[in-house]
Amino acid sequence: MQALSRLLQPRSVAVIGASGDPAKTAGRPVSYLLKHGFAGAIYPVNPKLDRIGELRCYSNVAALPEVPDVGIVLLGAERAHIAVRELADRGAAAAIVLASGYTETGDEGALRQQQLLEAAGNMRILGPNTIGLVNLTDDIVLSASGALEIDHFRAGAIGVVSQSGGILGALLSRASARGIGLSKLVSTSNEVDLELADFVDALVDDPATRVIALYIEAIRHPEKFRAAALRAARAGKPVVAFKIGRSEAGAKAAVSHTGAMAGADRMYDALFRQTGVIRAQTFGDLLDIPAAFATGRVLRGRRVAVLTSTGGAGTLVSDSLGVSGFETPVPDEQTAGALRALQSGDHAALDRNPIDVTLAGLQPELLRGAIRTLLASPTYDALVVIVGSSGVGRPELMAGAIKECLPLSDKPVLAYVSPHAPEAASLLTQHGVPAFVAAESCTAALAGMLQASQWQAPAAEPEGVAPVATHDLPAGSLDEAQAKQLFSRFGIACTRESIVQSGAEAERAARKFGDRVVLKILSSEITHKSDVGGVAVNVSSEQIAARLDAMASEVERNAGVRPARFLVQEMVSGGTELILGMHRDALGTAILLGMGGVTAELFKDTTMRLLPAEGGLTRSEALAMARELKTWPLLDGFRGRPKADVQALVDVIVAFSRMADQLGDRLIEAEINPVFVLQEGRGVRAADGYARMGLG
Amino acid sequence: MQALSRLLQPRSVAVIGASGDPAKTAGRPVSYLLKHGFAGAIYPVNPKLDRIGELRCYSNVAALPEVPDVGIVLLGAERAHIAVRELADRGAAAAIVLASGYTETGDEGALRQQQLLEAAGNMRILGPNTIGLVNLTDDIVLSASGALEIDHFRAGAIGVVSQSGGILGALLSRASARGIGLSKLVSTSNEVDLELADFVDALVDDPATRVIALYIEAIRHPEKFRAAALRAARAGKPVVAFKIGRSEAGAKAAVSHTGAMAGADRMYDALFRQTGVIRAQTFGDLLDIPAAFATGRVLRGRRVAVLTSTGGAGTLVSDSLGVSGFETPVPDEQTAGALRALQSGDHAALDRNPIDVTLAGLQPELLRGAIRTLLASPTYDALVVIVGSSGVGRPELMAGAIKECLPLSDKPVLAYVSPHAPEAASLLTQHGVPAFVAAESCTAALAGMLQASQWQAPAAEPEGVAPVATHDLPAGSLDEAQAKQLFSRFGIACTRESIVQSGAEAERAARKFGDRVVLKILSSEITHKSDVGGVAVNVSSEQIAARLDAMASEVERNAGVRPARFLVQEMVSGGTELILGMHRDALGTAILLGMGGVTAELFKDTTMRLLPAEGGLTRSEALAMARELKTWPLLDGFRGRPKADVQALVDVIVAFSRMADQLGDRLIEAEINPVFVLQEGRGVRAADGYARMGLG
Repeated sequence: MQALSRLLQPRSVAVIGASGDPAKTAGRPVSYLLKHGFAGAIYPVNPKLDRIGELRCYSNVAALPEVPDVGIVLLGAERAHIAVRELADRGAAAAIVLASGYTETGDEGALRQQQLLEAAGNMRILGPNTIGLVNLTDDIVLSASGALEIDHFRAGAIGVVSQSGGILGALLSRASARGIGLSKLVSTSNEVDLELADFVDALVDDPATRVIALYIEAIRHPEKFRAAALRAARAGKPVVAFKIGRSEAGAKAAVSHTGAMAGADRMYDALFRQTGVIRAQTFGDLLDIPAAFATGRVLRGRRVAVLTSTGGAGTLVSDSLGVSGFETPVPDEQTAGALRALQSGDHAALDRNPIDVTLAGLQPELLRGAIRTLLASPTYDALVVIVGSSGVGRPELMAGAIKECLPLSDKPVLAYVSPHAPEAASLLTQHGVPAFVAAESCTAALAGMLQASQWQAPAAEPEGVAPVATHDLPAGSLDEAQAKQLFSRFGIACTRESIVQSGAEAERAARKFGDRVVLKILSSEITHKSDVGGVAVNVSSEQIAARLDAMASEVERNAGVRPARFLVQEMVSGGTELILGMHRDALGTAILLGMGGVTAELFKDTTMRLLPAEGGLTRSEALAMARELKTWPLLDGFRGRPKADVQALVDVIVAFSRMADQLGDRLIEAEINPVFVLQEGRGVRAADGYARMGLG
Repeated sequence: MQALSRLLQPRSVAVIGASGDPAKTAGRPVSYLLKHGFAGAIYPVNPKLDRIGELRCYSNVAALPEVPDVGIVLLGAERAHIAVRELADRGAAAAIVLASGYTETGDEGALRQQQLLEAAGNMRILGPNTIGLVNLTDDIVLSASGALEIDHFRAGAIGVVSQSGGILGALLSRASARGIGLSKLVSTSNEVDLELADFVDALVDDPATRVIALYIEAIRHPEKFRAAALRAARAGKPVVAFKIGRSEAGAKAAVSHTGAMAGADRMYDALFRQTGVIRAQTFGDLLDIPAAFATGRVLRGRRVAVLTSTGGAGTLVSDSLGVSGFETPVPDEQTAGALRALQSGDHAALDRNPIDVTLAGLQPELLRGAIRTLLASPTYDALVVIVGSSGVGRPELMAGAIKECLPLSDKPVLAYVSPHAPEAASLLTQHGVPAFVAAESCTAALAGMLQASQWQAPAAEPEGVAPVATHDLPAGSLDEAQAKQLFSRFGIACTRESIVQSGAEAERAARKFGDRVVLKILSSEITHKSDVGGVAVNVSSEQIAARLDAMASEVERNAGVRPARFLVQEMVSGGTELILGMHRDALGTAILLGMGGVTAELFKDTTMRLLPAEGGLTRSEALAMARELKTWPLLDGFRGRPKADVQALVDVIVAFSRMADQLGDRLIEAEINPVFVLQEGRGVRAADGYARMGLG
């Protein structure tokens, strides 16, 4: 961490390859350091120049009068590693490498990037291909971003980490224009060394940072990210992330059938949800939601008062809130009375919601009274103030009136600015009332705040589960019977069944299972048994021998091979079909739960959780998964149906996840499809499934 | 129409109740008329003043030197009708009444509003409770909106009609700040006379207007709106509507079961879809989508080229486009070659998409070359240009380069501006390249354009259907058998069935229908037969007598009345269950189609169409409804299922809609639930249903 704090708060900065022309990219870092008031030492390094402005220029890193905390390397990719080595040799804490031409360009670039890492030794690297970092708390600008042409930025409580340099500049200039204060901005880009999670960690420790905003292209080390995000959540610093690549969902061919129903993007959803990260649905939300968090105020419920001084806009906000499940209840009797007492006239409609002070927009005393009343009211968890043209005309009056009331409560107070009035909006934001120009932004901000206040860290559950013996498992694709034996070892209840090779054996087995059974071929090669005619349900013991012969012939016709082994299996009836699967991708191992049946499949009614580094899912996570299914009511007594055995379903999810955890990389894929959830008290039955094992 | 054109383009305006103080609301209209350069005569009317500025003030309407085209009435509700009557007496074309205190305040206000209408006689009224209208084409400002404090607005091609005055002001000021040109803005508010549809009609005829933007709270006369919207669509003038009240969906208790699954807001969706109106999903879209249409350019497909001069933002736009089903294909070989030939260097990645000219952002020749190539490429239907900080620094250069290329093609060209740069964005918009600051706005604009170019007016189909005799129908709630007789008359195939009163009769009927039947109680009072134990399926002829007795007892226990009549009905198996219903509300009569079964119900998989003023639905509309169901694949051979008899389903939808049309108000509600759609060639069967008839 010490290197990181030297990087974020250096006392001296070397700029290798600095140009004397501030119009050039290589001229910007020195120019911006000076312009934005860096208080430490600046050492331009350029053998061709004696001075840059009033600064002495050095011919190389070795010639510097002291060890710089940070070196900004402005050389091209072909020479950057030389400067990096020199900085490392001198003992600099970190180098910021702006050059492009590394992994993003292909194999040759990847080699160059490896070379860069080796040159750094123990020194940390930010980049390459980064636009640098900006520490607004301490007026330290280590960046070539064109956004820094602006003269002044507002320091504040939002720390930003972006995997794109251009996006960092956009966030910086957009926040600045809106009066939103930032603490630190870091562009990590190629992440040869320092990455997203490192800076999340650093921002958790940064007293100036209250909320962390992330622009994510890909998380390279999920476990590190998970740890940092959980640390932030526990420290009460919300993490808001915008992740690009939503439309590539499903592009990666997934391994298992249920995997195909989930896209890689959904893995990020799961990761975020499990670590308390609030996902920004639009890029705009990535400033809007943190702007609300930066106030430090807390949303405890869904009931919002809308105070308006203009017709129409109040309804606009109420409507958007309603679409997202917020409520805008009318004032309780006492609150309504207090509102009515504020005014003698009969034109304003103060005892409704939106609370309309249209004709009182310029009466700060009335405004203050209304805000005080609403903040004190037990009916509301938050307040949105609508600013119309009357308020815009005298923004300081409006902002002042609201600001005075803020200390009375810690409920969120947001503003929606209806006409074009960027100065008024900025003033409000600077006064602690984040202002938005879209109703959806107000809603997103409140939804983010609610998510944060309702999030609970996953409780560690006592393990106490003895590992299951698995040394004797076969490798490769398991047939249905083998797969179920595997599942059974982990405590998963499967249908009773027998392997048979003849009609006579089948008949005996059918009698044993109550005379009505399922007959299937047993094969580790044919995965889609139904497609080749290899499944028959509701077969009686009398018919089964003939049915077995017919099935063998049909499968032979369809698949080119006559099946030698069959499975006779008890019929399960009356349960609800679900699918339980395991899916691996770059982000980790996910457990998927989906509703079975063709209709649910059309709606892709699935949910997933990533496994932690060690251990399976907890019972509460498993239950939460089941409840997230849109068809959860089917398990919960919908329309007079009997309730399903949800506890047994939770057991099977937990057991399946423990199997995935214990087997680790040995288990390549696994799926139970379907698992029948029977009536309450009657358990579950895994009725079909498969698994593929690697070499132990 | 003549009165309307005098209202929109008056040569003389009387302002009744004008104040000499422009800071007061009553002082604004005269002040704004002057400020924004009204070329006609202005007649302030105020008995207490001699002059307002340089204008002579008149003591009353009768004293005016000529008949004013328009009177702006600034008096309160208690006196406004007097001025209205005076204006009508003098022969003014229209009065604009700003006062509030009418229907929005309750019964007394409604009476006042009626009085206002009577006072107007043949003269038209805009309002009351309106903020007035603004004609930017001709510099005519008949409004008290505070937004008019701004000195200059950009005249353009977007006509706006808003049912909220505050929203009109917000749109005016927001558009102005963004360089978006408007033609006319009208606030209709209480709509005692002139309403939304009147101004849609006027804007269709207005040569300056190319696209119409509507802010809707409620449509008072759906048929009028429908006619005006269809007229606009046929004239090639897209109508974009933002409708408030999405979250009230479902609030109105709906009459029938399927009605409950559809909310009133969905009626608007249906109305918009059927009339080619593009629904803005957010208030922001209400400027963004029209801004794109105002260019007159045409989107013919989903393939978009993204040309970027900044990292990150191009991906942001591509991602958002992808989420909404747009494609961003890589350039075809010829296009890629042409792009590569533009530049000798190897840093820019010109042969991909996003096409990255990061290092060439300030080379207008390269930019022009790339835009020309992309506009000419057969691979792309539209172009989005990403403007980064390099482009923002010299916006006129960027805007100029793009503008020069526009005449080469009529494909849409939009801009996404990544940093905060409102001047650059405004300049681009003014140059014919609508600029957006959110990726979702680009996507919404393109989606709107695609919807408009793909919309087809509903084809009138030959009627040729003889009316069905219905004079002998019973009134009140029909029991299941009566309802099916009604449906049958209109050509709907129902299950075969017999009404029975005893076990012996039931047994005979069961034999007739193939020995496995459904037994139900027959009652017009008990609508939820299953809930009281009044339905049994798969009953054999041997069991049916006993089953009938048991059912009678159970229903008696549950419902307090012993059923006397029963229905024995053939079993239908193997079909797909759908629900077909009819629903009436303020917007008209809707036909609803929904997937049956408990899972589909959880997903609310329904769709609807409003009936036209006369006639039922066309076959193509009925087919489109079926295809809109998310579970349409269940009818279309999903996963090897047999295809369903979709033609027969279309027949039944059309027949049901004709029944609703022919019976009109006589039919209060009707539903078929379920209708089984059998395999292709086997038709459909209405298996249960009910109807309620009013008095013929």
